[in-house]
Amino acid sequence: MKIALAQQNYIVGDFEHNVGKIISAISTAKTKGACLVVFSELSVCGYPPYDLLCRTDFIQKCLTAVEQVAKHCIGISAIVGAPSPNPELLGKPLLNSAYLLSEGKIQSTHHKALLPSYDIFEEARYFEPNHNFTIANLNGKRIAITISEDLCDDQPMRRNKISPMAELKKLNPDLVINIAASPFSFDNYSQRIAVFADNAKRYGLPIISVNQVGANTDLIFHGGSVVYNANGFLSKSLNLFVEDIQVVDTESRGVIDSKIQFEPNDYIAQIHDALVLGIRDYFQKSGFTKATLGLSGGLDSAVTLALAQKALGSQNLRVLLLPSQFSSQHSIDDAVALADNLKVKYDVVNIKDSFDTINQGLEPVFDDLPNDLTEENIQARIRGLMLMALSNKLGYLLLNTSNKSEAAVGYGTLYGDMCGALAVLGDVYKTDVFKLAHYINREVEVIPINTIVKPPSAELRPDQKDSDSLPDYAILDAILREYIENQRSVNEIIALGFDAEVVAKAIRLVNANGHKRFQSAPILRVSSKAFGLGRKMPLVARF
Amino acid sequence: MKIALAQQNYIVGDFEHNVGKIISAISTAKTKGACLVVFSELSVCGYPPYDLLCRTDFIQKCLTAVEQVAKHCIGISAIVGAPSPNPELLGKPLLNSAYLLSEGKIQSTHHKALLPSYDIFEEARYFEPNHNFTIANLNGKRIAITISEDLCDDQPMRRNKISPMAELKKLNPDLVINIAASPFSFDNYSQRIAVFADNAKRYGLPIISVNQVGANTDLIFHGGSVVYNANGFLSKSLNLFVEDIQVVDTESRGVIDSKIQFEPNDYIAQIHDALVLGIRDYFQKSGFTKATLGLSGGLDSAVTLALAQKALGSQNLRVLLLPSQFSSQHSIDDAVALADNLKVKYDVVNIKDSFDTINQGLEPVFDDLPNDLTEENIQARIRGLMLMALSNKLGYLLLNTSNKSEAAVGYGTLYGDMCGALAVLGDVYKTDVFKLAHYINREVEVIPINTIVKPPSAELRPDQKDSDSLPDYAILDAILREYIENQRSVNEIIALGFDAEVVAKAIRLVNANGHKRFQSAPILRVSSKAFGLGRKMPLVARF
Repeated sequence: MKIALAQQNYIVGDFEHNVGKIISAISTAKTKGACLVVFSELSVCGYPPYDLLCRTDFIQKCLTAVEQVAKHCIGISAIVGAPSPNPELLGKPLLNSAYLLSEGKIQSTHHKALLPSYDIFEEARYFEPNHNFTIANLNGKRIAITISEDLCDDQPMRRNKISPMAELKKLNPDLVINIAASPFSFDNYSQRIAVFADNAKRYGLPIISVNQVGANTDLIFHGGSVVYNANGFLSKSLNLFVEDIQVVDTESRGVIDSKIQFEPNDYIAQIHDALVLGIRDYFQKSGFTKATLGLSGGLDSAVTLALAQKALGSQNLRVLLLPSQFSSQHSIDDAVALADNLKVKYDVVNIKDSFDTINQGLEPVFDDLPNDLTEENIQARIRGLMLMALSNKLGYLLLNTSNKSEAAVGYGTLYGDMCGALAVLGDVYKTDVFKLAHYINREVEVIPINTIVKPPSAELRPDQKDSDSLPDYAILDAILREYIENQRSVNEIIALGFDAEVVAKAIRLVNANGHKRFQSAPILRVSSKAFGLGRKMPLVARF
Repeated sequence: MKIALAQQNYIVGDFEHNVGKIISAISTAKTKGACLVVFSELSVCGYPPYDLLCRTDFIQKCLTAVEQVAKHCIGISAIVGAPSPNPELLGKPLLNSAYLLSEGKIQSTHHKALLPSYDIFEEARYFEPNHNFTIANLNGKRIAITISEDLCDDQPMRRNKISPMAELKKLNPDLVINIAASPFSFDNYSQRIAVFADNAKRYGLPIISVNQVGANTDLIFHGGSVVYNANGFLSKSLNLFVEDIQVVDTESRGVIDSKIQFEPNDYIAQIHDALVLGIRDYFQKSGFTKATLGLSGGLDSAVTLALAQKALGSQNLRVLLLPSQFSSQHSIDDAVALADNLKVKYDVVNIKDSFDTINQGLEPVFDDLPNDLTEENIQARIRGLMLMALSNKLGYLLLNTSNKSEAAVGYGTLYGDMCGALAVLGDVYKTDVFKLAHYINREVEVIPINTIVKPPSAELRPDQKDSDSLPDYAILDAILREYIENQRSVNEIIALGFDAEVVAKAIRLVNANGHKRFQSAPILRVSSKAFGLGRKMPLVARF
């Protein structure tokens, strides 16, 4: 059976765009001789639609879109994802469904049983779980159609009460098709791959899985659609982070006997590609082309600019250098060198006059109080204001350059360097930002080496260094990972061998700075626990 | 049976504070002769704990807290709310439980069956639903202990698959106790009251319901704990928006024969009281006492200041008047009059010099481009910067003064007038802000009448009026309510009689400004659909 895997990039709620893409892939698949083409989970509306699912007009559009696609399934069949109305009177009003389309109409629907409700997922908010497992019949083959999580039912931490695969196996399928919308995270990438291999082997069935590609706001979908044969070996792997359509013949010896070994890129390369896609799609899908940022000469803005240049092109970038009296000449030189390396237009606006005028205006209010963090924040906020002015005047979206270590401990100024439409590095710890810089420089020195090797500094007062206020990033990041990603307690982290005082201070800072992160730009998610919708901590709380 | 209803104000995760309060109420209840004292849902940890529930150290603290409280239940019993470990190996690891404590230990636990997963609720993220209904036995009485939503099982829109009350009724209880953490919203207040009356009458059982009071970040809990007799009539109603503890004797004629009619205050008075509590608790629970804001002479900042003055006291307020060359003298006069009326210290800082200096700095970048929205935003951002400087230097938290109409259509400057730790009026439409102003002035003119009657203006360019860019607020707010609260489609709203073009423009603005709301301060929720965690719309989307 020749099956096409259509790994596509959808825009949430843009039915014309999504249906257009789907119909075009059906036509391509037909040309390539496929008898079935498979699309990803909720493909007609794009994933994640969130509370649009609560709108009856949205659901109506989904159903109309499925009908539209069905009309194009003549001489070929397709599996698309869309919500479907729950036929039962009770329970959530929707099911998360796969539609088998053939001969111009809907042949059967198959519904998701395991609705993820953790991290960034809240499917129990919208959907009723399926308990009624059925097999799809196509061209004499019995197909077990599963949706995303339904194939992951054996992961102990999920504690799932039913096993869709075990139920479906009882119905003697010939192969398994899985349609998914699984976002990328570098730290559970291999786990996801293992699920396919394990299931294929355990049930002795080939598995074809099609995953969404592309970024929708903070969530980056890597694609990585795959075919595993009944022995649990990889037979085909679609390209990562790009749209791809490929056809497999499940009966061919190439598939049945395949033993491809899959070696994913280094995780830094994966993060790099994910962030470039994340930037590109945020802009394309919002209807913007041009980006700006404040280039300080430091590491974070340098890496952000290099990623933005990959995503949007030099001609779509324009940056500001905003030195103050505390900026070192080497910072300005490094920033200029980077802009030149990347062929990015820049302007230099010294903020000293604005800083002085604002301080003068506030003098009667502040009397003779000594300088403190206030004046540091004023500088950061003047920069934010000027960057937003450029954004408003010339139509460049501002990219935020804060990293995850800073976001965690609140080492940043709200409405200052925390400004921006999109936080590019907000899910990348500083130690990984260094690695990203080296990766970007792997062939040629794009980012001036001085930017990478000099001690990190905010340059908001004379001779300031990050290390004045924060532990060494190698230690800080290790502690943060244990607390945020691994959810360990303070005592457990200390027991791992970290200094008790350093741990206590770091965790106190994380918990005290939720109010800043609450107002953060959306953060491109590349880890299994990013700040944002997937980490829902109470703001006013004491723990 | 003499039962105490303990309506208390908890801090999420502050076990020492919460347990201290609970133990103190047990002692008070004992003094008043009660044999049972009832606390609200998840009382030991405070509601909502969100993802703290995913931390094993947090759950351990919850269990220890229950044990601590149990030790004080000698000669009196108590019902407290806390998570409990799910004894089953599969399913979510927790149950949302009520613990019956007596004779120094846990006597029985009773678990929530209906886990709300809509609007601000995501209990399916943490808890496994209960399917095993049991009766608590105390002093020869059979008590059906239910948790919040379990009593609301007959609401058609919820489409609940089981009825906890119907199950419990089969076990012949003598009375029903409901422990809740139901946040206030003015537009479903009466619905909530009706649920108690209906259930009491239908099942012929008295109902005692204890609800949490106090605000946790955006969510305001009104309390409003009640006793209904078996005829469905109200016998006792605890005070709204304050802590309260009261004892009822369920066997007394006063309870059995009661026919109290409940007349809630006007909804504007309710919103007023809710917002005052919301401000007060945000400050107290974050460890702050002092607030600032920018007083423009307009309606929103005036109402916000009056509410803050009620919540925090004049001595804890200090405001800035930040006029520009576009500010009218009457705005300054109105602002000064209000500050004087409320006895609030103020400073006047003209922003013209800062505005000019920043524009000069940007001149080389902007060449000779004409003035536009950029310069309006610069003014708003200078104000935000100066208010944050005051906040940083003197320790005053900045209150945001934007209303819901503005937040909906994006009529505000990100990092400008959208700055602030807490958005006081962000869930109050402009037409209701007017009503709030009249309510605040009900006895004496606190807010200068000129502030209320003059046409709303941002005063960011000469002779600017809100009505230049927006429809009349009466029409705009009506459209927004249909779209946001009632989730109607554009066509449905037009069919209600609104002008098609006006509707299309308003809805387009709502959908185009999600990126601003994404970075908004937390908004005190007073309606059934506030911007914030309960309205989870995709940011990059087209619908």
